[in-house]
Amino acid sequence: MRLQLMTWPEVATYLERSRGMLVPIGSTEQHGPTGLIGTDALTAEGLALATGEAAGAVVAPTLPIGMAQHHLGFPGSASLRPSTLLALVRDVVSSFAVTGFRRFLFINGHGGNVAPLRAAFSELYAESSFAGVPGEVRCALCNWYEASALAPFVREMYGEAEGSHATPSEVALAAYYHPGQLRPIPLDPPVAPDGHDFQDAADYRRRFPDGRIGSNPALAREEHGARIHALVVGELVERYRTFLAEA
Amino acid sequence: MRLQLMTWPEVATYLERSRGMLVPIGSTEQHGPTGLIGTDALTAEGLALATGEAAGAVVAPTLPIGMAQHHLGFPGSASLRPSTLLALVRDVVSSFAVTGFRRFLFINGHGGNVAPLRAAFSELYAESSFAGVPGEVRCALCNWYEASALAPFVREMYGEAEGSHATPSEVALAAYYHPGQLRPIPLDPPVAPDGHDFQDAADYRRRFPDGRIGSNPALAREEHGARIHALVVGELVERYRTFLAEA
Amino acid sequence: MRLQLMTWPEVATYLERSRGMLVPIGSTEQHGPTGLIGTDALTAEGLALATGEAAGAVVAPTLPIGMAQHHLGFPGSASLRPSTLLALVRDVVSSFAVTGFRRFLFINGHGGNVAPLRAAFSELYAESSFAGVPGEVRCALCNWYEASALAPFVREMYGEAEGSHATPSEVALAAYYHPGQLRPIPLDPPVAPDGHDFQDAADYRRRFPDGRIGSNPALAREEHGARIHALVVGELVERYRTFLAEA
Amino acid sequence: MRLQLMTWPEVATYLERSRGMLVPIGSTEQHGPTGLIGTDALTAEGLALATGEAAGAVVAPTLPIGMAQHHLGFPGSASLRPSTLLALVRDVVSSFAVTGFRRFLFINGHGGNVAPLRAAFSELYAESSFAGVPGEVRCALCNWYEASALAPFVREMYGEAEGSHATPSEVALAAYYHPGQLRPIPLDPPVAPDGHDFQDAADYRRRFPDGRIGSNPALAREEHGARIHALVVGELVERYRTFLAEA
Amino acid sequence: MRLQLMTWPEVATYLERSRGMLVPIGSTEQHGPTGLIGTDALTAEGLALATGEAAGAVVAPTLPIGMAQHHLGFPGSASLRPSTLLALVRDVVSSFAVTGFRRFLFINGHGGNVAPLRAAFSELYAESSFAGVPGEVRCALCNWYEASALAPFVREMYGEAEGSHATPSEVALAAYYHPGQLRPIPLDPPVAPDGHDFQDAADYRRRFPDGRIGSNPALAREEHGARIHALVVGELVERYRTFLAEA
Amino acid sequence: MRLQLMTWPEVATYLERSRGMLVPIGSTEQHGPTGLIGTDALTAEGLALATGEAAGAVVAPTLPIGMAQHHLGFPGSASLRPSTLLALVRDVVSSFAVTGFRRFLFINGHGGNVAPLRAAFSELYAESSFAGVPGEVRCALCNWYEASALAPFVREMYGEAEGSHATPSEVALAAYYHPGQLRPIPLDPPVAPDGHDFQDAADYRRRFPDGRIGSNPALAREEHGARIHALVVGELVERYRTFLAEA
Repeated sequence: MRLQLMTWPEVATYLERSRGMLVPIGSTEQHGPTGLIGTDALTAEGLALATGEAAGAVVAPTLPIGMAQHHLGFPGSASLRPSTLLALVRDVVSSFAVTGFRRFLFINGHGGNVAPLRAAFSELYAESSFAGVPGEVRCALCNWYEASALAPFVREMYGEAEGSHATPSEVALAAYYHPGQLRPIPLDPPVAPDGHDFQDAADYRRRFPDGRIGSNPALAREEHGARIHALVVGELVERYRTFLAEA
Repeated sequence: MRLQLMTWPEVATYLERSRGMLVPIGSTEQHGPTGLIGTDALTAEGLALATGEAAGAVVAPTLPIGMAQHHLGFPGSASLRPSTLLALVRDVVSSFAVTGFRRFLFINGHGGNVAPLRAAFSELYAESSFAGVPGEVRCALCNWYEASALAPFVREMYGEAEGSHATPSEVALAAYYHPGQLRPIPLDPPVAPDGHDFQDAADYRRRFPDGRIGSNPALAREEHGARIHALVVGELVERYRTFLAEA
Repeated sequence: MRLQLMTWPEVATYLERSRGMLVPIGSTEQHGPTGLIGTDALTAEGLALATGEAAGAVVAPTLPIGMAQHHLGFPGSASLRPSTLLALVRDVVSSFAVTGFRRFLFINGHGGNVAPLRAAFSELYAESSFAGVPGEVRCALCNWYEASALAPFVREMYGEAEGSHATPSEVALAAYYHPGQLRPIPLDPPVAPDGHDFQDAADYRRRFPDGRIGSNPALAREEHGARIHALVVGELVERYRTFLAEA
Repeated sequence: MRLQLMTWPEVATYLERSRGMLVPIGSTEQHGPTGLIGTDALTAEGLALATGEAAGAVVAPTLPIGMAQHHLGFPGSASLRPSTLLALVRDVVSSFAVTGFRRFLFINGHGGNVAPLRAAFSELYAESSFAGVPGEVRCALCNWYEASALAPFVREMYGEAEGSHATPSEVALAAYYHPGQLRPIPLDPPVAPDGHDFQDAADYRRRFPDGRIGSNPALAREEHGARIHALVVGELVERYRTFLAEA
Repeated sequence: MRLQLMTWPEVATYLERSRGMLVPIGSTEQHGPTGLIGTDALTAEGLALATGEAAGAVVAPTLPIGMAQHHLGFPGSASLRPSTLLALVRDVVSSFAVTGFRRFLFINGHGGNVAPLRAAFSELYAESSFAGVPGEVRCALCNWYEASALAPFVREMYGEAEGSHATPSEVALAAYYHPGQLRPIPLDPPVAPDGHDFQDAADYRRRFPDGRIGSNPALAREEHGARIHALVVGELVERYRTFLAEA
Repeated sequence: MRLQLMTWPEVATYLERSRGMLVPIGSTEQHGPTGLIGTDALTAEGLALATGEAAGAVVAPTLPIGMAQHHLGFPGSASLRPSTLLALVRDVVSSFAVTGFRRFLFINGHGGNVAPLRAAFSELYAESSFAGVPGEVRCALCNWYEASALAPFVREMYGEAEGSHATPSEVALAAYYHPGQLRPIPLDPPVAPDGHDFQDAADYRRRFPDGRIGSNPALAREEHGARIHALVVGELVERYRTFLAEA
């Protein structure tokens, strides 16, 4: 149930039975020499739409640009400042809440969004906490790449070469949604240098010259993407139902 | 050339020959009892992608949520505050500029975005103006629904029933991109009450009870959308080329 | 009824019969080699005071500095950032509303203020829209230079030499309010280069070297100002009455 | 030398010999049952214009609305939030600085502006301090009502009945600039209750029911205003010259 | 009664008898060649704790970093921008108010905090003033170094050599709280250059090369600190009781 | 090396050999019926001071109030909004950087600070990333309660009764720094209800009625605190040295 393809009376009907919404959020950033710049948004969107289909949930339009200041050393990357992302999420959630939505499950495809999103949720909650009244809105965050159902598959298929950016799993999933987009370009070295400490864009590029972190996305296959899709959607549906059922 | 489906080395190559970018921006808001909530984003995106194809221009991911506070009386609508939209546009443009983009043509599908977007451009320009140095970035705004090529067609097909919100032309264009989405639901009255003065959401809903302004979207046909698409894309391509060529 | 020359009990009495207010807003910016830096504020103020006189309306103090980042290449210009102007207008309107004012007609003398003002109105309306309650405040914008009664006169007197910045009509109107301020200095060329695309201050100065856009303000006469004053005030009075009468 | 009545080439010529500017700032707030709402702005403006005349200094347009949240219990008062006033002053000063102004002496007529203005100056200075470079701009604040030349006159004329808001001295000065504006309305009690601790608007109105603090403005005469004008202008001219001469 | 060493049920019990709180605020900035960087925070904290002890008042944790942009030319200094300090104080006060605190007496050790603190109080009050309702929170500011009980002692002990920054009195008080911290380092000149006009960090360092203003902190003795402590605490206790008793 | 007890020349000397700094950050919030409100700040401070001692590092003053909106249902709790904490950290770090500090290791005692702190670091890095230049500042975060050396001890001593808020380990550590502060008050139930999903203050209090989450702080002993101190400081020293040594 893609919100963009609904009319307002259809949403009104939906709100009679549910107050929940899925909100895909991605990023617009380099994913190594072969990965798509839209990977994080495309995967979050694909997963959210299928989850919405399976769970009968409305899916908001995908927020395509996230917090990716560390990728700005690579052409085509974009970023919001964390404070901008806070304001954006605050407005999106509180405006959807005006007409009755109450539970927002963010399906996130990008690690750099996690801290700003959690901070944004607290910023929202702070409104009622500072007012000394109970709030009506509840937000939750699902980073699809951390789905527990995904880990065994990834370990088996890619082992250490999964890495943590421009991973074969995200590349495979994006390729599943956009067939024909795998670039058969040789990567050098096949497995990128690893690490997890980086600061700004210049520091990132110095440490990870072609943009990948610890990964070999050449291992990605479209058919892996199909499998990842199934594994993650199953878990997301479950997560969403639990979220709605929470007191 | 959808940026989301490019890799960073491909963007690097593109930047050697062009510094331009198309940025579709829409809204998430009611479009009357039969129009799609995503109309403004879907049409801006469809037009931008075709314009990018024809002009060899990179197309940024669509910004799907705009300034639509006056629509918040209808389920499923969302809005950024104008100040949030300013911050968003400032970050999007200036982060794309880090890696070399210089000219940003916004393809806009929503009247409520116009003032905040123009204000955002001035906010961006103010950075260099206050610093007393020449700026490198140039932004322009194209509201597709104001394309001069469009007016005769609209007048002929819909006359007065075009109205100004949930218009048959935008509904037709969205239906062209998403076949099968026209709702054959009777509208009462067929042509909605007209007007152009409205303030907040409660005021808007009072004046325009089903969300439409002056329009009869039941006149929309998918094949009209095809024609609108062709007319507007032609003009947008021209506009983009002129924009790039300006001194 | 200049608010600055009233006492609070007089305002209390006024509020028993009217909730309306006129708010003149101008700019502090170059107006070519011969135009006054205060042109936009002085004209807005002069028109607002006469309109207030004729319509029995309270006139707020003139906001003298607007959004004019593009003029900062010329000595004596000043500017607010659009985001600052949003905050300013939000505070001015909502603080006047505390004691009972409800309808604010801005009399504006400067094109650069239009987008920020419209954005500011939406920012104000968003407060009630996001709260899901009807708002009490209503704002409207009148750009005096767009008065329909003015166009024929301008066309007849100045033709193409009206241009769009440092126009003979605004120079004449300012001279009407401040007799003896016309500078009989030769302009070269008599009619300035025209255009409407400009970005920041450096870009503006490059395109319009002496600050004028398409105008020949040497055509301005004080007696023209008297005529312009009468034409525009008549229309503003009408506009204000309609505004107050709107449901 | 009223900036609003200058042209940009005249300002350019001025800047060759001086980098100084006077900036009058007032407030729009109740001044008791008989005082003018514009008192603080009108007096600051009158003094600044005369000071500019005597000292050969450019005088910026008056900022008419200040920080007066505590007066919002009285009709016709308006206020900026302190944070808005900070942003306003930051933009005004830094935009004037773009074309060469360097020293800004604020002539202030309202106690409520003092803390926000001083904070705004620090906000401006913080830009260079945080950048680790010497700044070019210098601001100073003159509260005209604290002029040392004024104290003996006030003591002699009004004694304790000067009070601290809606004082006879400010009422007299405003009346000097706007003859015929003294309201011969009886005040009850003649001398208002005194105090200096107040918080928000409700608290202020509770403590000072007719708006005055400790004053008897019925003592004001237009001719007192003439004397006050002369005393204060003399001191302001001196202050300005010292300010310009400081290393 | 140091809040940090209480439990929430103990605070609940306290709130049954009092709604008052002491909030020490200092700065982290150079205090000349021999003064401690923490002087302003350490003295505010020491005085607040003793005042709380004597008056039975809860003492909030010390806010250790204030507005000190002018000290950033000296190693180890830190500063908040005034706008940040406004936001900080707004949040601290309004969050403590959620659970019942209503009166906040700030014990301040640093002149640079005064304007931002006063502006912050107005920002807080503006919330209720703009809402048109009476506010519940009341803030007051005590700059301990201005205690009237202190002046005679300081005059007697240090005379002109008290100066206004890195004063012997504040150095003595800090040494009283932290015995053994007096540095017996020769100062050159013994009494620092005086002044009170300074702008940013570069300007400050130029005028006051070793950081002191007009003072000779070599005169400070730990036993002076004991005396200062007693004098000021007495006055603060009185001030706090008056504050609580105000209508 | 507590910065507050240093002079600026001593800091200058320090900066010749090191650019590193430890920044303790805590929170002011309920810690169950027996835990101290200052627990998170007191523990972060105690650990940071000992780490600084062992590693020869300067220790900034403790930031005592963090992001704790969810605790505002319990008396004595305070909170910054996430956006305020972002601004605070941005100013603290960038002002310390003015005089030469480059590496900032935050010693954090509170889970609610994690997302805002990480977001704040990104906000800082975004400055150089958006400017397209390499930044000089590097920040890192150490949540002491996640020290790997701590886990075995906690498991052995408290098992499941460690819980996640008002834990026996943090209560023990605070008691080690402040002997005599353990409250021998019976807890009911001994082990608090567990959970990790909570939103605003009302929701938190509903789920965790006495403030604790899953913990039995009655198990805490001062001597445990001594052991925890030793274990964690050892790890922090190591972490700090690694941080300084990173390329």
